[in-house]
Amino acid sequence: MVVMDVDGVLTDGKAFCAGGGFEGVFFNVHDGTGITYLHRSGISTAIITGREVDAVQERARTLGIAEVVTGAKIKLEAYEGVRARAGLQDDDIAYVGDDLPDIPVMRRVGLAVAVPNAAPEVLDVADLVTQKPGGDGAVRELAEFILKAQGKWDQILDRYRP
Amino acid sequence: MVVMDVDGVLTDGKAFCAGGGFEGVFFNVHDGTGITYLHRSGISTAIITGREVDAVQERARTLGIAEVVTGAKIKLEAYEGVRARAGLQDDDIAYVGDDLPDIPVMRRVGLAVAVPNAAPEVLDVADLVTQKPGGDGAVRELAEFILKAQGKWDQILDRYRP
Amino acid sequence: MVVMDVDGVLTDGKAFCAGGGFEGVFFNVHDGTGITYLHRSGISTAIITGREVDAVQERARTLGIAEVVTGAKIKLEAYEGVRARAGLQDDDIAYVGDDLPDIPVMRRVGLAVAVPNAAPEVLDVADLVTQKPGGDGAVRELAEFILKAQGKWDQILDRYRP
Amino acid sequence: MVVMDVDGVLTDGKAFCAGGGFEGVFFNVHDGTGITYLHRSGISTAIITGREVDAVQERARTLGIAEVVTGAKIKLEAYEGVRARAGLQDDDIAYVGDDLPDIPVMRRVGLAVAVPNAAPEVLDVADLVTQKPGGDGAVRELAEFILKAQGKWDQILDRYRP
Repeated sequence: MVVMDVDGVLTDGKAFCAGGGFEGVFFNVHDGTGITYLHRSGISTAIITGREVDAVQERARTLGIAEVVTGAKIKLEAYEGVRARAGLQDDDIAYVGDDLPDIPVMRRVGLAVAVPNAAPEVLDVADLVTQKPGGDGAVRELAEFILKAQGKWDQILDRYRP
Repeated sequence: MVVMDVDGVLTDGKAFCAGGGFEGVFFNVHDGTGITYLHRSGISTAIITGREVDAVQERARTLGIAEVVTGAKIKLEAYEGVRARAGLQDDDIAYVGDDLPDIPVMRRVGLAVAVPNAAPEVLDVADLVTQKPGGDGAVRELAEFILKAQGKWDQILDRYRP
Repeated sequence: MVVMDVDGVLTDGKAFCAGGGFEGVFFNVHDGTGITYLHRSGISTAIITGREVDAVQERARTLGIAEVVTGAKIKLEAYEGVRARAGLQDDDIAYVGDDLPDIPVMRRVGLAVAVPNAAPEVLDVADLVTQKPGGDGAVRELAEFILKAQGKWDQILDRYRP
Repeated sequence: MVVMDVDGVLTDGKAFCAGGGFEGVFFNVHDGTGITYLHRSGISTAIITGREVDAVQERARTLGIAEVVTGAKIKLEAYEGVRARAGLQDDDIAYVGDDLPDIPVMRRVGLAVAVPNAAPEVLDVADLVTQKPGGDGAVRELAEFILKAQGKWDQILDRYRP
């Protein structure tokens, strides 16, 4: 399972605010395709975020992301719930984050991933740092990394071959 | 005819989401002018996209783009329909894309174009890679490339000469 | 008088579209301050744009821009009207643009300015190319250039001195 | 206390306008976390801006920013009010700005901070220039700078340690 933070990971860390409660973020379409390829290969995904943003729920539904925890005060607790409900071990899970609240989860999972725009303390605990920044293809890069490591990328490509 | 993917080609690949179904993208005004120059020179255009975004239909209407296929599950099928309805051969068509689903169409058309931010597998099958990224002038660059190759660019400039 | 194109000059050339006619652009607050400094120094401003975008009228009102022509099919005609109503000569006017439709006006005015992201044909007819791109401070840079050349910049700074 | 300008400091200086009074800006989530860390360490914050944007009030409420002055014609007056109501001396206050109207306040406070995208005249009066630009982490960087200088950063990190 791939578990993802939102702000700075699935987005570039910017929140658009227009008053009257109107708030939005930019998601990356290549990230979305990467998540679809994970699902197609039997790898589930989940989102844990400390904020409450409607767009996150909607985006998750569109992409078929199994579980979304928003407003998570303590991410490690949210992670424990997600892991238990999925019936997985820490070693079966990759987590990608960018800021201090992500650190306790990153210390726990099998594969701790940071985006290059992460806080230095987060980079320190990461097993892997993506080349592409958050919101600009980091999750797509991670999806390809995992699918290639598991020998499943060629199957993805097969669909687009002559 | 010039056939274009949307996300990552006519846009920078980012989708703005604000909850309540509010979704939007950024189009580039220079790309729009390039499309207008194609039309003025007798070259038609079409859009094929795997997603359903209202803004795409609206933008296409504004620019006079002949045909728009949204929600295309298999782009090659959508392309076959567009090509047949236009009464054209594969060799009469340029297609510009950026991700794996574009590959089957790119293998078919006369001129396969990729943006520099395309997936490596897409760059591999491209006859031409634009210098400008998707959403930042790639389609304008392609329009000029085609119009110059066909000796029609000077006619475009004539309108703005003393 | 300083006359400005909108897309690619007062903006970065991107138009946000969300369906249902919702369209917007990004203006730069430093550009706005520069326009205010021009007005404070007795230099008027005007906008000429080929598109119809509500936001332009609103932004112009906020900044006190004297005249706004939207939907200008032929910019030279729009410019002639603006110039005549202001009772000015071509030599009294600076115009800043970025694309082919701006060329005829740029050939006419006393100071023809292009942004660095302009089409090459526009750069060719420019007397001055700003260092900052459109939507990212180009108009502020032009305002300072003019105010310094006319010895009025120090007066602007005086307000913020101890 | 840390007092902040908005446009170009808490944002990248761009204002999104869509007509009908719809206006918004991008805030940075890392900046928001930095402000939270300041509060958690007993350092209060305030906002002074010359513009009137609803989003600013809303963002300030979400983050628990003590005081927000919008539509400030003369920033030094607004600053004097904020300082007096907080019962602080100039030396107890850091101010971060980017344009000419910020200069009089920056000459007054104990720590005058500029973002790298500030006007040259602002950079001249700054005690400190952040590495990260406005809207892209400048305020987070300043928060960490202050907390480290006061030996409070380790306490922040403690919460995320095993």
